[in-house]
Amino acid sequence: MKMESKPERDGPSRVSLPDEVRVISVGLPAFAEALRAQGTAVVEVDWRIPASGRPDLVEALTRLYGPLAHRVDTANREVLRRLDSGAPVLIGIAAAADVIPDMDAWTLLHPGPRLPFQEFCDPLRRSARAAVMSEGWARNQDEAERLIVRGRVRLEPANHHATVLPMATILSPTAPVFVVENPQGNNRAYSGINQGPGKVAWFGVDAPQAVERLVWLREVAKSVLDAALKSSGPLDVFSLVAQGLQMGDDAHMRTQATTNLFIRHLLPHLVAQANRQAVDVARFLSSNHLFFLNLAMAAAKAVTDWAAPVPDSSLAVGMARNGTTFGIRLAGNADWFVAPAPPVEDALYHPGFGPEAAALDIGDSAVLELVGLGGAAAAASPAVATFVGGTMASAVATTEAMDRICAGRSSRFKLPFLDFRGSPVGIDVRRVVELEMTPSINTGILHVQDGLGQVGAGVARAPLACFQQALRALEAQLR
Amino acid sequence: MKMESKPERDGPSRVSLPDEVRVISVGLPAFAEALRAQGTAVVEVDWRIPASGRPDLVEALTRLYGPLAHRVDTANREVLRRLDSGAPVLIGIAAAADVIPDMDAWTLLHPGPRLPFQEFCDPLRRSARAAVMSEGWARNQDEAERLIVRGRVRLEPANHHATVLPMATILSPTAPVFVVENPQGNNRAYSGINQGPGKVAWFGVDAPQAVERLVWLREVAKSVLDAALKSSGPLDVFSLVAQGLQMGDDAHMRTQATTNLFIRHLLPHLVAQANRQAVDVARFLSSNHLFFLNLAMAAAKAVTDWAAPVPDSSLAVGMARNGTTFGIRLAGNADWFVAPAPPVEDALYHPGFGPEAAALDIGDSAVLELVGLGGAAAAASPAVATFVGGTMASAVATTEAMDRICAGRSSRFKLPFLDFRGSPVGIDVRRVVELEMTPSINTGILHVQDGLGQVGAGVARAPLACFQQALRALEAQLR
Repeated sequence: MKMESKPERDGPSRVSLPDEVRVISVGLPAFAEALRAQGTAVVEVDWRIPASGRPDLVEALTRLYGPLAHRVDTANREVLRRLDSGAPVLIGIAAAADVIPDMDAWTLLHPGPRLPFQEFCDPLRRSARAAVMSEGWARNQDEAERLIVRGRVRLEPANHHATVLPMATILSPTAPVFVVENPQGNNRAYSGINQGPGKVAWFGVDAPQAVERLVWLREVAKSVLDAALKSSGPLDVFSLVAQGLQMGDDAHMRTQATTNLFIRHLLPHLVAQANRQAVDVARFLSSNHLFFLNLAMAAAKAVTDWAAPVPDSSLAVGMARNGTTFGIRLAGNADWFVAPAPPVEDALYHPGFGPEAAALDIGDSAVLELVGLGGAAAAASPAVATFVGGTMASAVATTEAMDRICAGRSSRFKLPFLDFRGSPVGIDVRRVVELEMTPSINTGILHVQDGLGQVGAGVARAPLACFQQALRALEAQLR
Repeated sequence: MKMESKPERDGPSRVSLPDEVRVISVGLPAFAEALRAQGTAVVEVDWRIPASGRPDLVEALTRLYGPLAHRVDTANREVLRRLDSGAPVLIGIAAAADVIPDMDAWTLLHPGPRLPFQEFCDPLRRSARAAVMSEGWARNQDEAERLIVRGRVRLEPANHHATVLPMATILSPTAPVFVVENPQGNNRAYSGINQGPGKVAWFGVDAPQAVERLVWLREVAKSVLDAALKSSGPLDVFSLVAQGLQMGDDAHMRTQATTNLFIRHLLPHLVAQANRQAVDVARFLSSNHLFFLNLAMAAAKAVTDWAAPVPDSSLAVGMARNGTTFGIRLAGNADWFVAPAPPVEDALYHPGFGPEAAALDIGDSAVLELVGLGGAAAAASPAVATFVGGTMASAVATTEAMDRICAGRSSRFKLPFLDFRGSPVGIDVRRVVELEMTPSINTGILHVQDGLGQVGAGVARAPLACFQQALRALEAQLR
């Protein structure tokens, strides 16, 4: 295993004193400030009461860091190895129901934890209607809605089918998907083709042009991209992502550099297809800087699914949102621990929009944060910096915060701003619950109700409650 | 003018004292270290004797920073305005002699200051032979050499013809060139099409495959690229470069991100050309990460040529090397001030090669360092960091050193690692001579004699002598 070693950390109840004893201020910064104002030297200890001192959580932490630590750490090492060493390759494009496990001709896959249709948020509902129309099952939004409400289609969480879907993407049976294979784990994962900018279903739009885009992806983009990929051969997804991180991508909020590397890779194979359709696809690729997002997600899903069966681990291998709920799962446990979806903070809105227009955090793209990308790689990305304070120092702080709750560092995703240190990998629920610091997820924001598409972007903080549930479950499971 | 203001600096003879007086150590760090070892607080002043105390230079500096300062600074502001605001656009591709001023059917253009053929270094000599063969003037290297030695072709410095050529590029009359127009200055500049990696003439190779590449650029690449550019419309070169700097390019040693942006821009227009030649060009673009280098250089040449006629300036508007000599010129003076070409330092060599295989610093690409790119933008580039110490801090130090000898900062080339501060623009000979700090130039290294092509890359330090000459000439000119 090539992962960087990370200093072992103390348990929650140990605080070591500095060598030289002056005033030590623990907790509230106001004390330290008051002393400094009087010219007194102060050493501040960044410490707070673990898990806010809640007895059940403190007890669980004490056991998971204490007598159970060896068992958990051993499991975590194997999970980290898989998250860090799996190197999924893109092997082609296929119709969803032809390749995705247990997806039949009447299944729609949705992002996030399982959710009944009546609890879908507006953007997700619209995306589902657009997907139904794209299949030709309904002629308009009302027909599509009725068909779903009557239970004529099966709604399934994509994550349960080796699939991940960004934002409000709904995947229908004939929709084209990227097929990504993880040779190390002998498993595959899937994601739809990114639908591009504008009035599109993955942004919660069900207008005719959103449906047309879905049909175009199936009827035009699929064959052109598949032919180009067959001609170019399999593509190591994370190898491109690693390069993209040296070029300002976090591989979540921004995938422009990686998309461009992908375009460069495909270029000769696209030019070789001398037809009108290839020109359309070229134009689409050329104007879609998030094209690679779905591919990075599929690769992240492949390695997290490979790590998922490892028992006894405190590391997350699932993190997903549907706009209503936010869920995580741990390696060695098939359950999802769910809490209400958070709002997106630190947001920059498109002109004319503000927080009142914002739907809640949505999409499976948080799978990227599990493998060292997105918020974990904020320090790689000037674009992300603009969302978290405007300086690279604030982007670095985002990565450093992830580092405090992660168990390892990537051996392949390097951060130039941190002198090529690996990005944090392996979110450890013990650390999250102890420090009460949850992962930051770089993400877009959809309009809350009018089907207006994307209205901004920002950072979502995962809700603490699902990590607390997961911690309790782990402790119970190891009894 | 939108350029960032930069704090005014003192003249060479003024040093201000710190508010609190402790031990002040001026000059040699050893003094300060000795005091610190005894527990004494030391304030170190980064100061050395200006221009090593050479009386003629000190006198010239005293006048140029003193009574002549207003005149010089006024001129410099106008030069900076031109360097920073000119926004050259790529408008097409043409045969060199059809568009380059005063280039006839028997002219070869070479990089760097004017140089007789007998003083050409080996790589440049080989490149000239390859160019002659590509024109069909000679069937082999010997014939080509004889033809040049007999004076059957006119050798001219590209810089005198609004043209810049990277590394050992020799431009022959029918070779295709990028035509770049600077609307603000109503002037044009030119550069050859980058010849790509491998055994190529611009790397000092005259083997048959190097000649074939030149012929292929003329017979195949020219028409495909020109058709794509005509279809896409004019392209703002520095706009792409500015984006590339956010993506890890310094736009000199590394142009991968900018090249990829260019590829993305051209993609639909290349795919639309349904023919075998377009596929070849696509393959060439896809495997040539320095493709954009020549375009960035042509744009830099356009703005430096626009700034060149401004009188009374101490800022460099020309910096070029031919592998034998290194030259600079100042705005308001057509003369080139020349010194022997330096070696390339901080070098990383290809396996099997070392300093003994290295030709001296060569090429017109140093024009980039005049406009805030290359060494000036080292802090933008993790790739450059690997050449200057392996950490981003060392890349930042390279930019900071350029900042000390530059008169302004770019309003468009922003450095994420320095919190989006503009890169340094406008090398001021006064500062260079005073501080004895010359520009750092990120560059490749060619094999010294065997026509083996590129053997490494590193950083060249411009020779101080040409800046000292330029300073004396400026002072004389302003008398």
